[in-house]
Amino acid sequence: MRIEVGIIMGSQSDWPTMKAAAEILDELDIPYEARIVSAHRTPDRLWDYGRTAAERGLKAIVAGAGGAAHLPGMMASKTRVPVVGVPVQTRALSGVDSLYSIVQMPRGFPVATMAIGGAANAGLMAAQILATSDPAVAERLDAWRAALSASIPETPADD
Amino acid sequence: MRIEVGIIMGSQSDWPTMKAAAEILDELDIPYEARIVSAHRTPDRLWDYGRTAAERGLKAIVAGAGGAAHLPGMMASKTRVPVVGVPVQTRALSGVDSLYSIVQMPRGFPVATMAIGGAANAGLMAAQILATSDPAVAERLDAWRAALSASIPETPADD
Amino acid sequence: MRIEVGIIMGSQSDWPTMKAAAEILDELDIPYEARIVSAHRTPDRLWDYGRTAAERGLKAIVAGAGGAAHLPGMMASKTRVPVVGVPVQTRALSGVDSLYSIVQMPRGFPVATMAIGGAANAGLMAAQILATSDPAVAERLDAWRAALSASIPETPADD
Amino acid sequence: MRIEVGIIMGSQSDWPTMKAAAEILDELDIPYEARIVSAHRTPDRLWDYGRTAAERGLKAIVAGAGGAAHLPGMMASKTRVPVVGVPVQTRALSGVDSLYSIVQMPRGFPVATMAIGGAANAGLMAAQILATSDPAVAERLDAWRAALSASIPETPADD
Amino acid sequence: MRIEVGIIMGSQSDWPTMKAAAEILDELDIPYEARIVSAHRTPDRLWDYGRTAAERGLKAIVAGAGGAAHLPGMMASKTRVPVVGVPVQTRALSGVDSLYSIVQMPRGFPVATMAIGGAANAGLMAAQILATSDPAVAERLDAWRAALSASIPETPADD
Amino acid sequence: MRIEVGIIMGSQSDWPTMKAAAEILDELDIPYEARIVSAHRTPDRLWDYGRTAAERGLKAIVAGAGGAAHLPGMMASKTRVPVVGVPVQTRALSGVDSLYSIVQMPRGFPVATMAIGGAANAGLMAAQILATSDPAVAERLDAWRAALSASIPETPADD
Amino acid sequence: MRIEVGIIMGSQSDWPTMKAAAEILDELDIPYEARIVSAHRTPDRLWDYGRTAAERGLKAIVAGAGGAAHLPGMMASKTRVPVVGVPVQTRALSGVDSLYSIVQMPRGFPVATMAIGGAANAGLMAAQILATSDPAVAERLDAWRAALSASIPETPADD
Amino acid sequence: MRIEVGIIMGSQSDWPTMKAAAEILDELDIPYEARIVSAHRTPDRLWDYGRTAAERGLKAIVAGAGGAAHLPGMMASKTRVPVVGVPVQTRALSGVDSLYSIVQMPRGFPVATMAIGGAANAGLMAAQILATSDPAVAERLDAWRAALSASIPETPADD
Repeated sequence: MRIEVGIIMGSQSDWPTMKAAAEILDELDIPYEARIVSAHRTPDRLWDYGRTAAERGLKAIVAGAGGAAHLPGMMASKTRVPVVGVPVQTRALSGVDSLYSIVQMPRGFPVATMAIGGAANAGLMAAQILATSDPAVAERLDAWRAALSASIPETPADD
Repeated sequence: MRIEVGIIMGSQSDWPTMKAAAEILDELDIPYEARIVSAHRTPDRLWDYGRTAAERGLKAIVAGAGGAAHLPGMMASKTRVPVVGVPVQTRALSGVDSLYSIVQMPRGFPVATMAIGGAANAGLMAAQILATSDPAVAERLDAWRAALSASIPETPADD
Repeated sequence: MRIEVGIIMGSQSDWPTMKAAAEILDELDIPYEARIVSAHRTPDRLWDYGRTAAERGLKAIVAGAGGAAHLPGMMASKTRVPVVGVPVQTRALSGVDSLYSIVQMPRGFPVATMAIGGAANAGLMAAQILATSDPAVAERLDAWRAALSASIPETPADD
Repeated sequence: MRIEVGIIMGSQSDWPTMKAAAEILDELDIPYEARIVSAHRTPDRLWDYGRTAAERGLKAIVAGAGGAAHLPGMMASKTRVPVVGVPVQTRALSGVDSLYSIVQMPRGFPVATMAIGGAANAGLMAAQILATSDPAVAERLDAWRAALSASIPETPADD
Repeated sequence: MRIEVGIIMGSQSDWPTMKAAAEILDELDIPYEARIVSAHRTPDRLWDYGRTAAERGLKAIVAGAGGAAHLPGMMASKTRVPVVGVPVQTRALSGVDSLYSIVQMPRGFPVATMAIGGAANAGLMAAQILATSDPAVAERLDAWRAALSASIPETPADD
Repeated sequence: MRIEVGIIMGSQSDWPTMKAAAEILDELDIPYEARIVSAHRTPDRLWDYGRTAAERGLKAIVAGAGGAAHLPGMMASKTRVPVVGVPVQTRALSGVDSLYSIVQMPRGFPVATMAIGGAANAGLMAAQILATSDPAVAERLDAWRAALSASIPETPADD
Repeated sequence: MRIEVGIIMGSQSDWPTMKAAAEILDELDIPYEARIVSAHRTPDRLWDYGRTAAERGLKAIVAGAGGAAHLPGMMASKTRVPVVGVPVQTRALSGVDSLYSIVQMPRGFPVATMAIGGAANAGLMAAQILATSDPAVAERLDAWRAALSASIPETPADD
Repeated sequence: MRIEVGIIMGSQSDWPTMKAAAEILDELDIPYEARIVSAHRTPDRLWDYGRTAAERGLKAIVAGAGGAAHLPGMMASKTRVPVVGVPVQTRALSGVDSLYSIVQMPRGFPVATMAIGGAANAGLMAAQILATSDPAVAERLDAWRAALSASIPETPADD
């Protein structure tokens, strides 16, 4: 089955956050690849990934990074494939630095930014993008959403 | 030609910000509709818009709001069509309130958040989503991006 | 005895915060109901709760939520019953996101916002609202407040 | 007709903000009084106002202040009448100082806090509190809300 | 020996922070009293303390509080004795709420604000105020400061 | 008449803010001197001013600065005379940078910090410090404060 | 004369800020080049500039950008020549977004960050770096600094 | 071998942060000295260090401090040797106070500011400055950077 979603992150240390995106895609039966692509340490890898993303058939790139988080925005400058950005929580600034570095992109190069630490939602957004042209994904997404809603109890429970 | 992008906003006062999304879609020759849908003042309109969005063939909804900006997130809860959120700048808090209200969505309901005031990029993100399944849009996007890059002079000019 | 106060929250995980409101109402002998009503996951439940709140005799709705906290504001758009909002503390942004999403409501739909994590005060505000027309509640509130003031020692004590 | 709402503010300079509360109460035909009560400059006035508020029949006190905004919270410590706080926008900190000084009240003394500059909503919240025991006010509020919703056009208009 | 410094705080829970002020005054051999004076829970105690402060011979009042920290500013409105404010660190907002509530006082009623949690420095500032008219305190302060400077090693040491 | 208050500032551009301190001291008939002392551009001047402050009879130093505002804290390290710090409002960060640079002093060297732009209050705090040992200043301060309170009208006036 | 300093910026709109760096270098008689290099719109230009910077003899690169300001950090990843970053002030977030995007660089790729809008200081820092190996620049810098200090008047002047 | 880099810090408690700078310099075989120099507690030590820095042959000074962090900026006012500032993380404000106190320097006295806690990068920036005139350091830096890039795996690994 063709891989249509790439999950990339700036560092191994982002994986505990980012694997929530992978888990959602697993639940939705959507194949993906996961790669470490550092904007600063492996810029050439970033270049190559971005240059070939569309022709390789990627339809969404989930990109997570923390601090001066340049990966999502730099990827967005290299490809028209939608980039879904995940601001990774940081120690001193709690991810506000990551959020601003990702969301405040200049005209021309949007990054679809998620909540701080919101990698699960990044996986869902990738699925929603796929669903705009893939009825099978749309159906699985609808079922996933219905199950989520059905799981909410009426009243809160004490532990 | 079928309308695949909806631009919605919480109030007439958001239009000066949001029409930058419309202008980008015009430049890219992508048909769209523009509607005022207030989460608080016209919640039933929001309900109907969200309930019918997918079946009407929308592939992206650009949603702008300011302050306690609930429109993008509430729309995201009503439809699986990707919602691209635009935090509108506000007077006291400069749009940080709008940004947090839009981006910090809980698991299950992502909003693809743009920069504060970033409506042009919202139009581009909508186009990038369309381009994942529409080669003609992809081609026009590539040309638009190439033109943007080509327009940058080598050296800064004094006025 | 008629239930005049509803305590609602976006998720089971808000209950450890919100039960402080229930405890205050217990202390003041004011009956209440507690419900999970998620703006995003169970929007129809929110709709129904809001539509029937006034006719069911509710005089105050205590609503807690975290992050992009849309529940209090959406409830305020569905009913004229006063909504008392509790911003639940969050991991990355400490509840500033919750606070802004709840307090910065647009003209027409106020939410009576409490401190971050201030569920006990939300219970008290609900009681104060009831006390405007219920002398028995007013009397119990006055006693509760007097006892609180009387409990303050003159000098600080080392452990 | 008996006055059930008091509008108080820390200084004459708050009146341009606070009169929006008065205007809403005028629209809803709810009598009110407007007073300058400075927590710091006229603390005895604050004391007297708070001490007599309930016995004078007030059912809501709208209190606006800016900066180290102590008026709403100090009033809340002197009376069980619900205090609706309005953080007035400030020059250096845009009203974040006012907001924190009003909303972050300790256990025992809630202030129903509105948006920064949200005096109109403070008037509405006062009306909603009155409406819990006054069907005529409830009816006028419902009409006001319905008119607000009916006033929203379907599509945005260029100037 | 006459007591010239009062240490007051809004709650017993502020004492672990505030006793650093007491310890400094002990080191400097300056007598003081420590009292719990809550702006909201014991406003009359605040009133009495402020009204009699100058005539009782107090020359500095160290006042600590957290959250919507009204104690230092309200005390400053009741007496011309210099009030030295200590913003106590809070759970959600880390004391930024306390800081803004204490430092942003309106014209007429200054509070000499210290760092968040800076109770030791509040004790020192009280001593510095006393030293302006008490040569013996000045001498002890100079010695304390000289000892502090002399205690700094030339090079950092590994543990 | 002996000068007991020094007003210092980092730059000529701080004077429009700082002269409010001078005006208060004029109103209270307290002699003062005003000097430009830049921590970074004239560090030796700062050194000399601090070294001689106590022996010259200064009882309070009002120090204003903006941005990385090191003047008040560096002066506090050079003299035991109480330093009253005024964070000057800045263009990008509105004076939050000035506030943090002044108020967050380490143990040993307190600065009595005022509100952002609060130079008038700095003059008052200097006067309050003088009043702890000068009954004539105390009397003039009491009169000034009484006049301030007496000037507050009962009701707000439309323009 | 060999060019040892490059001034680069993300957009023509940054030039009004960045030319202050050029002016300082002019005052110090240090040759420089000024280029527009957009991280997102002309990434290949950025690549080439960084790859050849050291071999071309550059000893400092002053880089200004605003919003999600990726230019300084991406340049720092491409060359060991010291990059001096200037956060350009932005409309909604006043340059806090620029500051965080520039200063919060991960281990390995420092950017020497200046104040928001601090382009003049960026020019000076470039000169200070040159001065570590160029006695003539050191001498001119010392003179420039001495003149700055000598220009400060003793007392503030009314306009 | 001549010492060309000084590492200074305001207090022993900064050493756990600052020794990361020393470790980088060790890795790069660059000799350095480490000193405690407190702007407030040992201002004369600061003066002497700054006055002799250039003549002693220092080419970079790495300076770390927290809170009202005046050390880097005061050092920058005393010497033309480039000062690389490290904002040390603080308890209440997470180092935002340190960052603002270091980075927001006025015209004339730049501090090359690093990320909060970014001492390793401060060591690297010092090395990059040395490398502008020392080919051997340049070579070791290039090797260090190449090794860093080579160490990044292609895919993330579960623990």
